[in-house]
Amino acid sequence: METICVENGMPCQNENERVNGGRQQQQQEEHAAKQVRFSSSGGEHLHEHQHEHEHASEVLRQIGPQLKLLPLNDQIRELQTIIRDKSTSRGDFVFCADRLIRLVVEEGLNQLPYSECTVTTPTGHKYEGVKFEKGNCGVSIMRSGEAMEQGLRDCCRSIRIGKILIQSDEETQKAKVYYAKFPPDISRRKVLLMYPILSTGNTVIEAVRVLTEHGLQAKHIILLSLFSTPHGARSIVQEFPDITILTTEVHPVAPTHFGQRYFGTD
Amino acid sequence: METICVENGMPCQNENERVNGGRQQQQQEEHAAKQVRFSSSGGEHLHEHQHEHEHASEVLRQIGPQLKLLPLNDQIRELQTIIRDKSTSRGDFVFCADRLIRLVVEEGLNQLPYSECTVTTPTGHKYEGVKFEKGNCGVSIMRSGEAMEQGLRDCCRSIRIGKILIQSDEETQKAKVYYAKFPPDISRRKVLLMYPILSTGNTVIEAVRVLTEHGLQAKHIILLSLFSTPHGARSIVQEFPDITILTTEVHPVAPTHFGQRYFGTD
Amino acid sequence: METICVENGMPCQNENERVNGGRQQQQQEEHAAKQVRFSSSGGEHLHEHQHEHEHASEVLRQIGPQLKLLPLNDQIRELQTIIRDKSTSRGDFVFCADRLIRLVVEEGLNQLPYSECTVTTPTGHKYEGVKFEKGNCGVSIMRSGEAMEQGLRDCCRSIRIGKILIQSDEETQKAKVYYAKFPPDISRRKVLLMYPILSTGNTVIEAVRVLTEHGLQAKHIILLSLFSTPHGARSIVQEFPDITILTTEVHPVAPTHFGQRYFGTD
Amino acid sequence: METICVENGMPCQNENERVNGGRQQQQQEEHAAKQVRFSSSGGEHLHEHQHEHEHASEVLRQIGPQLKLLPLNDQIRELQTIIRDKSTSRGDFVFCADRLIRLVVEEGLNQLPYSECTVTTPTGHKYEGVKFEKGNCGVSIMRSGEAMEQGLRDCCRSIRIGKILIQSDEETQKAKVYYAKFPPDISRRKVLLMYPILSTGNTVIEAVRVLTEHGLQAKHIILLSLFSTPHGARSIVQEFPDITILTTEVHPVAPTHFGQRYFGTD
Repeated sequence: METICVENGMPCQNENERVNGGRQQQQQEEHAAKQVRFSSSGGEHLHEHQHEHEHASEVLRQIGPQLKLLPLNDQIRELQTIIRDKSTSRGDFVFCADRLIRLVVEEGLNQLPYSECTVTTPTGHKYEGVKFEKGNCGVSIMRSGEAMEQGLRDCCRSIRIGKILIQSDEETQKAKVYYAKFPPDISRRKVLLMYPILSTGNTVIEAVRVLTEHGLQAKHIILLSLFSTPHGARSIVQEFPDITILTTEVHPVAPTHFGQRYFGTD
Repeated sequence: METICVENGMPCQNENERVNGGRQQQQQEEHAAKQVRFSSSGGEHLHEHQHEHEHASEVLRQIGPQLKLLPLNDQIRELQTIIRDKSTSRGDFVFCADRLIRLVVEEGLNQLPYSECTVTTPTGHKYEGVKFEKGNCGVSIMRSGEAMEQGLRDCCRSIRIGKILIQSDEETQKAKVYYAKFPPDISRRKVLLMYPILSTGNTVIEAVRVLTEHGLQAKHIILLSLFSTPHGARSIVQEFPDITILTTEVHPVAPTHFGQRYFGTD
Repeated sequence: METICVENGMPCQNENERVNGGRQQQQQEEHAAKQVRFSSSGGEHLHEHQHEHEHASEVLRQIGPQLKLLPLNDQIRELQTIIRDKSTSRGDFVFCADRLIRLVVEEGLNQLPYSECTVTTPTGHKYEGVKFEKGNCGVSIMRSGEAMEQGLRDCCRSIRIGKILIQSDEETQKAKVYYAKFPPDISRRKVLLMYPILSTGNTVIEAVRVLTEHGLQAKHIILLSLFSTPHGARSIVQEFPDITILTTEVHPVAPTHFGQRYFGTD
Repeated sequence: METICVENGMPCQNENERVNGGRQQQQQEEHAAKQVRFSSSGGEHLHEHQHEHEHASEVLRQIGPQLKLLPLNDQIRELQTIIRDKSTSRGDFVFCADRLIRLVVEEGLNQLPYSECTVTTPTGHKYEGVKFEKGNCGVSIMRSGEAMEQGLRDCCRSIRIGKILIQSDEETQKAKVYYAKFPPDISRRKVLLMYPILSTGNTVIEAVRVLTEHGLQAKHIILLSLFSTPHGARSIVQEFPDITILTTEVHPVAPTHFGQRYFGTD
């Protein structure tokens, strides 16, 4: 986890550092130059951000390895920025959300089990590669999770996609399942559970509960999300310690307007 | 560079290690488990691969920071495997090539200059983000480079795309420019030069020469490719030390059938 | 309506005739040649098909101008065939469904109001064209209607999309609304209501009822569907005589497995 | 052909009439209402348009059945308008061009040979459908024809795509082939030849010549285009009377800026 948390304050530095850990030397040198640029954003916000990010890294440390951050880079940061920005047009919002979703889906697929294999190239060479296992499916949590279905389909042409609708009961205020449709053999599959914004975590917890009632083990669930609050991620992992959560940013403020903006019902 | 090269022999381990450097602790632990699995691929090929990969990392060290490898992961390895495999169907070849191209394009965009900015969220919070600069364009080297145009367009809706055709002169065997069409102000742009397979490097060198004759500096060129031989990358960097090359794999055997298979003229 | 109904028996002829009415002379001549080919399909089924299609045309006549058939052609017939065929793979099913959906969406957009306008071309010529009015939105009826959302989005980048979930109440067996989310100003919009298979028509009738309760007039609803039974279309129009229904085929047998196959929950 | 040409003057009426011929009664009634609206566009231009359109229909009559117009509708007219309009943004230009290309491709596929077949539905019914024959391929004429490749690929996932580059020789001003790459068995295929703007027709004539030199018969070529001048279509058909030309509009002014705008090299 140490590679994610940061000491020197600015969120931009932090996030760069995170990605640079996995790159080559020269990029770290570039990074040094970038830090100079970032530093010019002023000292005033420094404490605040330091606080915020110590918080984020603290959360990551507390929650443990189930919470995985997408390897961050500047393009992802731009997509996050545009999605967060209230002045973004609907067209740009949907376009950038779709790009970020695609990257999360690619990384999510990467969490699935695979095995090694050897193939023969057209010139007769042996090439040692890998082959992912079959038996996966997607499940979107309505409504906002449905925004992620096309991204999944674009990477896995004929993947099966289930769906679940959870809403608060008007009287009891408790999360209640209104609709659920899964592939019949879901208990034997790995599930990519899709929900873009983890705020309180309650909806996801209820969805996972329904899936486990269908015989699925939480350790076979990879939750794909775009943004999470520390609280949301923590709640989910406390309830289901074996689940994997993938997200692009842990931040106390979640863009809870996501579904409304994406579908244009705001 | 040390983070890329590997000591302990198996290519799968190596490649995993590369990406794990940039991830969290728990993923390294997972990795340990994976290594066990990989080890079962046997000792017979070990020396050979060790050699191959020492070679690759040696090449990376020699060539220097201009050559950047896409952060490798298992999905990317699967895409590489399917593209390499001579038994892959045309439909699957194109589908997997398009997915790998998209990932290279995303990482290529990430190499472009940006600046920090602060935006306001719908709930009134300030969010410190980044904004990429305008003034980029794509240039594809015909024919195989054109396979990458749609991936670029899918990430940058209205990016301008130039094109260049280079072929060997039948008499002199020298690379000769048959066609070139660029945005008029190309000398003031950053250029994403697209060519999927770097084999000898000659075609790319000729293309960069044409671009520099149009006033573009090599340091403003990011070459997007899928596969490169050590020789190809080395030749290009020797000729143009300021260029940036992005690829997903450096391997002595390049899938030179790429264009033929992608367009179905094989 | 006369241009749709057919006298001479074979469904293929009928459907060709339908589209040829709107084409040029030479295509009618081609058509004559095609009829010869179709005739070879034998006389045995003739009566049966004659009956089926007289039925279809009779239904169209009864239902009246609210029911519009997509101008049929052989590609559309192939897509219909592949979707109907139980031996079709999931990948092909989704691919062909998406193509047919795109064509229905394009024709649906064509039903929306527009006005004429004059534009200036780059060479300074005046060109008399048309411009569609703003103020449209999509509404999908869950679950199968959601399969049509991406097709709509592919034609109208930032169109707003509402959603409605209707299910039979377990006790009373009556259609009941479980979820509804619309753009706030839906009563002032034209609505493209999406539901691929019209079987009994009950679900659509309930959905339209909800929309009218939100202040929308039925005459501002264009129902986009792929397949309809005569009964389904008739029921909807009887209930809401001002609605427009667009479909590609009216046939007593509806492919009711559509949603299950498309999402892979069969 | 009579169904295309028009007597009563306004181009908008004409174009509506063309499509209405193939629709149902009620649409013709709607059309009557629309005409009133169109009539308000004034009498001043009436003669001019009458002339233009008599010219177009005259051309169609002269050229004969090889020239096929896409069944026109108002959405297509809007796409034509946006593409013609010099004030259109690059993003909108590309988006609308892609939509129009998709419609031309769908109609082009429809010109290919097919045979009837009977399939079994999941509920055990027999369904009489059609099946298109294999053995087709695409060939794009560079550069603007390449804009149509993705549309073709989106409808035919793994279709083979050849390419040809023709330019004027600087000395002789004659069209000269600089590059050609086709599937090896092209002489046995049906070819969808792609070139969006037919202005003089010279480039296409040269491309067809090259194809015939590879053993392909002109009757196996379907030329997919967006816009054509009367002269361009006439020249091509005079040279190759067996070719099929598909376009969306025959108009003396061709948007010759198409390639420059689409690729952004203007």
